[in-house]
Amino acid sequence: MIDITFPDGSVKQFEKGITAMDVAKSLSNSLAKKVLSAEVNGEVWDATRPINDNAELKLLTWDEEGGKYAFWHSSAHLMAEALESLYPGVKFGIGPPVDNGFYYDIDLGDKVLHEDELKKVEKKMKDLAAQKNEFVRKDISKNDAIEYFKGKGDEYKLDLLEGLNDGEITFYTQGGFTDLCRGPHIPHTSHIKAIKLLSIAGAYWKGDEKNKQLTRIYGVTFPKQEQLDEHLVMLEEAKKRDHRKLGKELELFTFDDDVGPGLPLWLPKGAIIIEELERLAKKVEKEAGYDRVRTPHLAKDSMYYTSGHLPYYKDSMFPAMECDGSTYYLKSMNCPHHHKIFDALPRSYRDLPIRLAEYGTCYRYEQSGELFGLMRVRSLQMNDAHIYCTKEQFEEEFKAVNDMYLKYFDVFGIEKYVMRFSTHAPEKLGEKYVDEPELWNETEEMVRDVLIKSGIPYQEVADEAAFYGPKIDVQVWSAIGREFTLATNQVDFSQPRSFNLSYTNSNNEPEIPIIIHRAPLGTHERFIGFLIENYAGNFPLWLAPEQITVLPISEKFGDYARKVLKYLNNCDIRCSIDERNEKIGRKIRDAEVKKIPYMLIIGEKEVNEQKVAIRKHGEGDQGTSTVENFVASIQEALTINK
Amino acid sequence: MIDITFPDGSVKQFEKGITAMDVAKSLSNSLAKKVLSAEVNGEVWDATRPINDNAELKLLTWDEEGGKYAFWHSSAHLMAEALESLYPGVKFGIGPPVDNGFYYDIDLGDKVLHEDELKKVEKKMKDLAAQKNEFVRKDISKNDAIEYFKGKGDEYKLDLLEGLNDGEITFYTQGGFTDLCRGPHIPHTSHIKAIKLLSIAGAYWKGDEKNKQLTRIYGVTFPKQEQLDEHLVMLEEAKKRDHRKLGKELELFTFDDDVGPGLPLWLPKGAIIIEELERLAKKVEKEAGYDRVRTPHLAKDSMYYTSGHLPYYKDSMFPAMECDGSTYYLKSMNCPHHHKIFDALPRSYRDLPIRLAEYGTCYRYEQSGELFGLMRVRSLQMNDAHIYCTKEQFEEEFKAVNDMYLKYFDVFGIEKYVMRFSTHAPEKLGEKYVDEPELWNETEEMVRDVLIKSGIPYQEVADEAAFYGPKIDVQVWSAIGREFTLATNQVDFSQPRSFNLSYTNSNNEPEIPIIIHRAPLGTHERFIGFLIENYAGNFPLWLAPEQITVLPISEKFGDYARKVLKYLNNCDIRCSIDERNEKIGRKIRDAEVKKIPYMLIIGEKEVNEQKVAIRKHGEGDQGTSTVENFVASIQEALTINK
Repeated sequence: MIDITFPDGSVKQFEKGITAMDVAKSLSNSLAKKVLSAEVNGEVWDATRPINDNAELKLLTWDEEGGKYAFWHSSAHLMAEALESLYPGVKFGIGPPVDNGFYYDIDLGDKVLHEDELKKVEKKMKDLAAQKNEFVRKDISKNDAIEYFKGKGDEYKLDLLEGLNDGEITFYTQGGFTDLCRGPHIPHTSHIKAIKLLSIAGAYWKGDEKNKQLTRIYGVTFPKQEQLDEHLVMLEEAKKRDHRKLGKELELFTFDDDVGPGLPLWLPKGAIIIEELERLAKKVEKEAGYDRVRTPHLAKDSMYYTSGHLPYYKDSMFPAMECDGSTYYLKSMNCPHHHKIFDALPRSYRDLPIRLAEYGTCYRYEQSGELFGLMRVRSLQMNDAHIYCTKEQFEEEFKAVNDMYLKYFDVFGIEKYVMRFSTHAPEKLGEKYVDEPELWNETEEMVRDVLIKSGIPYQEVADEAAFYGPKIDVQVWSAIGREFTLATNQVDFSQPRSFNLSYTNSNNEPEIPIIIHRAPLGTHERFIGFLIENYAGNFPLWLAPEQITVLPISEKFGDYARKVLKYLNNCDIRCSIDERNEKIGRKIRDAEVKKIPYMLIIGEKEVNEQKVAIRKHGEGDQGTSTVENFVASIQEALTINK
Repeated sequence: MIDITFPDGSVKQFEKGITAMDVAKSLSNSLAKKVLSAEVNGEVWDATRPINDNAELKLLTWDEEGGKYAFWHSSAHLMAEALESLYPGVKFGIGPPVDNGFYYDIDLGDKVLHEDELKKVEKKMKDLAAQKNEFVRKDISKNDAIEYFKGKGDEYKLDLLEGLNDGEITFYTQGGFTDLCRGPHIPHTSHIKAIKLLSIAGAYWKGDEKNKQLTRIYGVTFPKQEQLDEHLVMLEEAKKRDHRKLGKELELFTFDDDVGPGLPLWLPKGAIIIEELERLAKKVEKEAGYDRVRTPHLAKDSMYYTSGHLPYYKDSMFPAMECDGSTYYLKSMNCPHHHKIFDALPRSYRDLPIRLAEYGTCYRYEQSGELFGLMRVRSLQMNDAHIYCTKEQFEEEFKAVNDMYLKYFDVFGIEKYVMRFSTHAPEKLGEKYVDEPELWNETEEMVRDVLIKSGIPYQEVADEAAFYGPKIDVQVWSAIGREFTLATNQVDFSQPRSFNLSYTNSNNEPEIPIIIHRAPLGTHERFIGFLIENYAGNFPLWLAPEQITVLPISEKFGDYARKVLKYLNNCDIRCSIDERNEKIGRKIRDAEVKKIPYMLIIGEKEVNEQKVAIRKHGEGDQGTSTVENFVASIQEALTINK
């Protein structure tokens, strides 16, 4: 018999060799029907794989990441089976699950696959799925595996096998298809009810452009048709809200070949959003006792050797500039500069906590293939700050940082979020993690405590901390349900040592501070990219680059319209007037396209009554009012950030 | 007879070979006594040099730059004469006039000159000056010149002679001393009444550290003793106000070896000043119709080849970063980035003028020997903007920029300033200047007109314009009378062409805009350096990093003192409290050292009366008041920038 420990800590005994699926059945048949895979001692397994030793077990369904992962992984195999049956002789590269579905890279020889053929593949996949074929795992020797793929003539799998060790190789088979695969997979194909193949792209074998270009097919699958329908609606909506498309239409930012890829130029309307965000951040940070600093965008290599960016992070940095015997690098993070400022003055325990904040622009050399709109860029304007505190102050400081996140979630209407809390692994102290067992336990305990007390939803993930301390990745969902990783929040007990930072404690002895790295609004680039999608470009009044436009129906009303404009201007409202010789319908349509929150329409009636006709973007007519009353009515929406 | 034209346009006839001094004497003997040199056809000459052709003549006295220049140049010769008489065999390098005096680089062989020996040299100079020796100019052949310095054994002068052409060489002799020199010089030595040798430094021959190090002696002279006395007081005051010293004492900024020379790190108190200046600039620029933009700190080389920074400005740029076959440079100016933003959208004459503003940090590779505190740095946070306008709009735009300068002079109490207006030279069109004779004349005329109309003091200097248009250098004097070049203001008709910028004019044709480059507050680095000296660190209330400190006389009054602090905090005042267990005298002294504008002292009387005792930095006791009334009384000084 073996002991199976469940997530709630309870322990049950089962026979050796039992599977997670058997355990599920022993608990509830309806549960068992939903089980897709299982976490055994922290590793995701097939639910049908025998468990031979005492283990911690967590059953995974569609609701867990590990369940989805297995589901989409199995869907990739299902697609491969369908392709092989439709296009005999097709060769397979890799076919992994990804964030929202899966893909498979295939080699169809001379055949070119067209998008309209995907329907046929989908149909075949549905037929095969309905057969309820089990995913069967099998250990296989390297020789036998090579024999198998030689027989099939699949040079890609043979290439992959070269990198694997005998004794560690497994095959998975469902129906008539067998693949080289580590797993895990779902129990059988009939879980896969709803299937959509999304697109075809080219992809070099092993990502190397010297290799052959394979055909990559992206797909997504769900246990229920309505989930797929929702997902497709979301994708459609995401396309409309695409920050690159809206960023261009709303004239927020641009890229220029002569400046370089991944280096956005912020146009006036985008810069307004940046300025408003910075105004908000500076206000919030001032109230929270932060000091602002300014540091240059480069430094000598010696500083980056101290921080460890060199040599470990070198590939992500812009290359060195050599001058007069010194070597300079653009900063990829602000922390070392801030540490130097901490170190520039003698510090006493009375001065702590010291919170140094800067909207520092960092430069990271992302591979050009990785660049994507504002989401992956090479210049990052970061809402950065570093808090230097004593061990005693840590908990309060960390809580205050989390509260700041919650405040921002509220301001930006972010309703779904989770903090992914990454902790260390005790057995890897001194290797993967700085060797401070007590500090790890203490700070992790404090962080956990803060998370629990504040009621923030969080997931704890072992063995994913930073080298220098536990960290929190903040994940948020946009209004259409897409997930974004916006920011990280890190505890650091390593860099203070490397930089020889210290303060004088109350016993007049030098002591090393703890550092919290934090950036609640992430970078302007990614955060504004997120906001564009979140708001579909309909920014709330205080963020809107243009807040109100005045639309005189004809030039007869120009004088009064300009008087209204002047009033708005004096109220510090970002406003414009459309005095073109165009029909009012056209003026309204153009203002709607620009997503200007309010239009004030001025015709004969309005001039006679000394009022304005109010029209709200996307909502239409709001009646008439004096301009004074109207401005008073939107005062709160305007001043959230003043 | 020749025609002599005077600055007022009047013309008089004189005999050929007349000197400026003769002309002066013919006008007024008392004037002649003050004449130090003369501008003949735009070139500064000895007042005693014969004029053989029709000429434009301006007599120069101590009040003109050309007069001072000759005075200090002659003083360098006088010092050389004194040195030669005291230290026979001394060899001479170069001895030019500089901004505030002169120096001479000398080689004393094995002798080391000590500061206390300078008195002896000064004494000798005075004796020689009193001899009223004339400065006598003499043309000399290259051979004879070489013969002369071979005779003296002065290898430095021989080295200089190598670079000169026969027929262009002149000697100047006064008393017993003869020097290789182009001149010009003052008529005789007895103009030099007040003499001070200031310091001794080392200087490599020709600035090359592979050469021998010579001894450089700095000095300054004046026509009157009281002028020297004033100057020495100013120097003493400048030492006290030294921005490097005060910057450290007031914890405004720091430098760090690991970051690099010339790259200031702004500490929290310095960053407050930066933030306040930016708030002011953004407000002023918003009111003036500027749009803000944000651009990255680097770009590909192709952009800098278009702008002409490459190859012409390459030595002043940080070296290239090569990645993935592209070459990137840190930006040394913001203009090309702004041009790209202008070019990112189609522009119509209706959109113009477009004014793009950015506090863009530029990076320039100044030689390490040139770096000086905040005055010469490698990272420059620039109050930059570029105005794109039509020819018709130019005058109004240029005037608005000048008005902005005047506004700032007023805000910062800058009473003495001058705009140095540099124009082109028609004969150099197509070489030194872009070949647009009409545009040059038109814009120079417009600029001149604006300057005259606005009553701004200006000097016009021919043949010193930028390649692409006329420019204005703005020179200001600090409270102690030191001169700073803060900013330039340039007209540009070249870059719009290079960048292919255009807008659609009212005839629906493409037209090229004119650009105005402007940066009224210069860079944060230089401007704050100037402000530190200008205010002696006593920043006006709105700029002061710490505005008010609350000083309880003993801990008994802590509760009330903290209530006062809270009130100040709520009024958005940058305030602190000194609750140390120290005597009130000590607390006041420490606050005075920190130059905090106001101290609110809280003792028994103040608690009983619910008031505060007000003490102003540098001025002492200001009586008592309720904190509410006190804050009301300083509201204007606090809110200049809100």
